[in-house]
Amino acid sequence: MALYVQKFGGTSVGSLDRIEAVADGIARSVREGHQLVVVLSAMAGETNRLLELASQVSAKPSERELDMLVSTGEQISIALMAMALQKRGIAALSLLASQVGIDTDGHHGKAEITHVCKQRLSECLALGQVAIVAGFQGVSPQRELTTLGRGGSDTTAVALAAAIGADECQIFTDVEGVYTTDPRVEPKARKMDHITFEEMLEMSSMGARVLQIRSVEFAGRHRVPLRVLSSFKEGEGTLINYDSHCQSAACVTGIAFSREEASITLTGLKDQPGIAAAVFSPLAEAKVEVDMIVQSSAANECVDLTFTVHRDDFTLAKSLIKPLMPELGVDHLIETKDICKVSVVGASMQYHTGIAKQMFEVLGREGIKIHLIATSEIKISVAIDEKYLELAVRSLHSSFGLGED
Amino acid sequence: MALYVQKFGGTSVGSLDRIEAVADGIARSVREGHQLVVVLSAMAGETNRLLELASQVSAKPSERELDMLVSTGEQISIALMAMALQKRGIAALSLLASQVGIDTDGHHGKAEITHVCKQRLSECLALGQVAIVAGFQGVSPQRELTTLGRGGSDTTAVALAAAIGADECQIFTDVEGVYTTDPRVEPKARKMDHITFEEMLEMSSMGARVLQIRSVEFAGRHRVPLRVLSSFKEGEGTLINYDSHCQSAACVTGIAFSREEASITLTGLKDQPGIAAAVFSPLAEAKVEVDMIVQSSAANECVDLTFTVHRDDFTLAKSLIKPLMPELGVDHLIETKDICKVSVVGASMQYHTGIAKQMFEVLGREGIKIHLIATSEIKISVAIDEKYLELAVRSLHSSFGLGED
Repeated sequence: MALYVQKFGGTSVGSLDRIEAVADGIARSVREGHQLVVVLSAMAGETNRLLELASQVSAKPSERELDMLVSTGEQISIALMAMALQKRGIAALSLLASQVGIDTDGHHGKAEITHVCKQRLSECLALGQVAIVAGFQGVSPQRELTTLGRGGSDTTAVALAAAIGADECQIFTDVEGVYTTDPRVEPKARKMDHITFEEMLEMSSMGARVLQIRSVEFAGRHRVPLRVLSSFKEGEGTLINYDSHCQSAACVTGIAFSREEASITLTGLKDQPGIAAAVFSPLAEAKVEVDMIVQSSAANECVDLTFTVHRDDFTLAKSLIKPLMPELGVDHLIETKDICKVSVVGASMQYHTGIAKQMFEVLGREGIKIHLIATSEIKISVAIDEKYLELAVRSLHSSFGLGED
Repeated sequence: MALYVQKFGGTSVGSLDRIEAVADGIARSVREGHQLVVVLSAMAGETNRLLELASQVSAKPSERELDMLVSTGEQISIALMAMALQKRGIAALSLLASQVGIDTDGHHGKAEITHVCKQRLSECLALGQVAIVAGFQGVSPQRELTTLGRGGSDTTAVALAAAIGADECQIFTDVEGVYTTDPRVEPKARKMDHITFEEMLEMSSMGARVLQIRSVEFAGRHRVPLRVLSSFKEGEGTLINYDSHCQSAACVTGIAFSREEASITLTGLKDQPGIAAAVFSPLAEAKVEVDMIVQSSAANECVDLTFTVHRDDFTLAKSLIKPLMPELGVDHLIETKDICKVSVVGASMQYHTGIAKQMFEVLGREGIKIHLIATSEIKISVAIDEKYLELAVRSLHSSFGLGED
């Protein structure tokens, strides 16, 4: 008997048939003797339906009212799931974030969870009930409804798992686990049974497809055992490991990528302490996520600074930077849209030489120009033109021998 | 400058165009200097869409989960309305019942409001904001989401008006006011400028078409000035008056009716004190609304008892009564379905003789059999076969001279 938090995303509960199928799986787990807290997203399409309504009403709806609107999506899912479970004779109770006590920092549309109260969930479990919790939402200090931003239901699941000390946080998705790269881009991609936490962090920057990166970080901070598995197919999925002894033998684990990036280069910045903070503070305050940052020296005690942001935030980022340019001494602001990021990831990479060389050779052979390079202990990332994404991923996947045997 | 609570029903906000039109009206009121609290229902069709989803998941979904599900409808309305107002430069804030502090007795699906906290609304008004409140919902002592049952948004509006001491509670509907009878049944029906509270109580038993009866009672208890008006057409609507000096000159004010009733007759009841309570207590506990009650003496110290309920509650009512029959000494339970109630209403009726005689003569002339008769100081009601409803209403409306001049 174990205590699991199970999270099901939008496609997993995307229709009434899917809700019934998920309810069957939950009922099976309960009958096997497990205690469950279930976190649900909105039914696939529902959030977009609501956003479409909002966009028809206002070109620029307030973030607060958007949160009020879209958080109904998860509420519908949890009510229907509770009904589906009760029909199967399973005691179940739907709970809003306000009823559980999921507190956030109050930043509408991109809130972060600050605290989870475990009392109500513990009461449910003690009564033998399955708690069905609305993902993606929380309550601000001012008792305002706030949403957690893209993929936020994963974060909800991990936060609940941490609060109640779950044996495992199981994220059910439309994929069977974590792959060496996205199988839609490289059909030869292979599912991994285990992956280290650090590798997962880098791989999940592929986007929301597998796991939202903030949820992985949250899991890491609280050492929540995290498993990614399919809600459509039986299988063990991929377990995320905190034990560094379990590192995979291969030095490269996978090829990660993220689409729809854009870069901004500022040239001629005064080379002074605090200059980077001056650039990135306003972006952080506006919750613009900056991905790669590269700084290089230029002539005359100046530096060039380049960073990438998601393309959706590009216009906002520019508008925040422009007023600062005179003060920072910026000569030029150079923008590059339509780029993407491709990364080679591997926890034991740091013990192997030649990975970077091999990566650059492969890309050069395919005629792919590299705009930016950034490295970490377990990752080498490059920014390239987005049109080359698939070519780059497949070439690297093959070159590092990641495909099926 | 006045303080108004304005309530808009489902058809008034039934589409984005309608929401924009209502927002125009609210903006106009604000610019005229009025302070507003707005109560909204779900967009027409939304509640049915949700109930349809529930019925596909479960033949008998729990009331708690139904409340969780359908209360999303109002949440969507208030968010969209706040956006529409903000677009017009009007400060507006959507508020859930839990955020306002609307407490209920916790009876899922049919909850009654027990208390309204005025603090949050007062804060909004002090900041010059229009508070847009989700109708139809409240929070139980256990912090559960509860809905108020049919027409509950009217009750929300009246309760808020009472709490903040509004100058008027304006109920915007798809009709221009209160008519001498339903214009769909009798095209000659005339809109009234004023109606007394007592008359309104009787008239509103016509059903949810004009005003939900519980909201009228609530308004009466708190002496909330209530106005019914159209959200589609300009006009003064009908003001509900508490001043008995303002009674209309005519002794009959209007013809009310309610469809879809059914009656249960119990014969041979022991004629003992407490016998009626024994019958009606279980119905009250199950929140079955009993309408007409008629008791008549029979032979052998026995009585016959007949009462009517809404047809939806008919099976439930029978199942509650049947186990009690031996103890009560009931010989027979006689059921009559497919009946309706038609009432002649008038506040000054009590000072005029002959109203009952005229009513029975009219019905007799048309060949309409009367199943039950019940009278109050300002109303005479009869139960008749539902197929005669339109004929009875038109004949009585004409006979009492209620039509347009």
